[in-house]
Amino acid sequence: MVETGPSDIYRNYIACLNGQDWPRLGQFVHDEVRRNGKPFGLANYRAMLQRDFEEIPDLRFDVRLLVTEPPYVASRLFFDCRPKGAFLGLPINGRRVTFAENVFYEFRDCRIVEVWSVIDKAAIEAQLEGQR
Amino acid sequence: MVETGPSDIYRNYIACLNGQDWPRLGQFVHDEVRRNGKPFGLANYRAMLQRDFEEIPDLRFDVRLLVTEPPYVASRLFFDCRPKGAFLGLPINGRRVTFAENVFYEFRDCRIVEVWSVIDKAAIEAQLEGQR
Repeated sequence: MVETGPSDIYRNYIACLNGQDWPRLGQFVHDEVRRNGKPFGLANYRAMLQRDFEEIPDLRFDVRLLVTEPPYVASRLFFDCRPKGAFLGLPINGRRVTFAENVFYEFRDCRIVEVWSVIDKAAIEAQLEGQR
Repeated sequence: MVETGPSDIYRNYIACLNGQDWPRLGQFVHDEVRRNGKPFGLANYRAMLQRDFEEIPDLRFDVRLLVTEPPYVASRLFFDCRPKGAFLGLPINGRRVTFAENVFYEFRDCRIVEVWSVIDKAAIEAQLEGQR
């Protein structure tokens, strides 16, 4: 039997997001998941992701760097997309933006139980400045 | 002889920053260090940190989460400080703000050779909003 570590589970989780395969999300995310130090829950987590895909139709999670030390996974995600309207309070309005998200996950029982995420908002602002 | 891994080196690097021990910085940071994908160099790196401490006299790096998989270290840093004037383009003007930085480091020859950092600017903006 092949051992499945956090990095394999994590890559399957990312494939689940990119496939918008919401019925499978609970295989990767714990019911009692916490986000940035606060209770959040699987239902909120799924709703947040569905809203992200509604607001950013070409959203795609691209793992650029993966650092694993069980029970933790740290990932640098890259995005290249065109949010339809506002994103993080910024007026994107269909323009193309690229940015990174540096995010930590804690796993329990092979599922994500805590997430600490930071999105590079300053990089997006710099791109909007440059387009003015 | 005790093996010194990246997490030990990293904690000594953080102690060097908190001690503002700039002559020692080159023990931890490579001459040719890159930052967010671009050439940066040790002299710029030191100047950036010195400027940070000038603009934020009570700056202190507090490691909250450390994930190590050689040659990478991922760290979630926490800050609780009072920037004197503007910080990340925001008018802080001596108010107390708390925020995180999620940052990845690549090590080569026991020194940091590449850094990918994201600071939680949105969290600071939310605190300024709440104080209005």
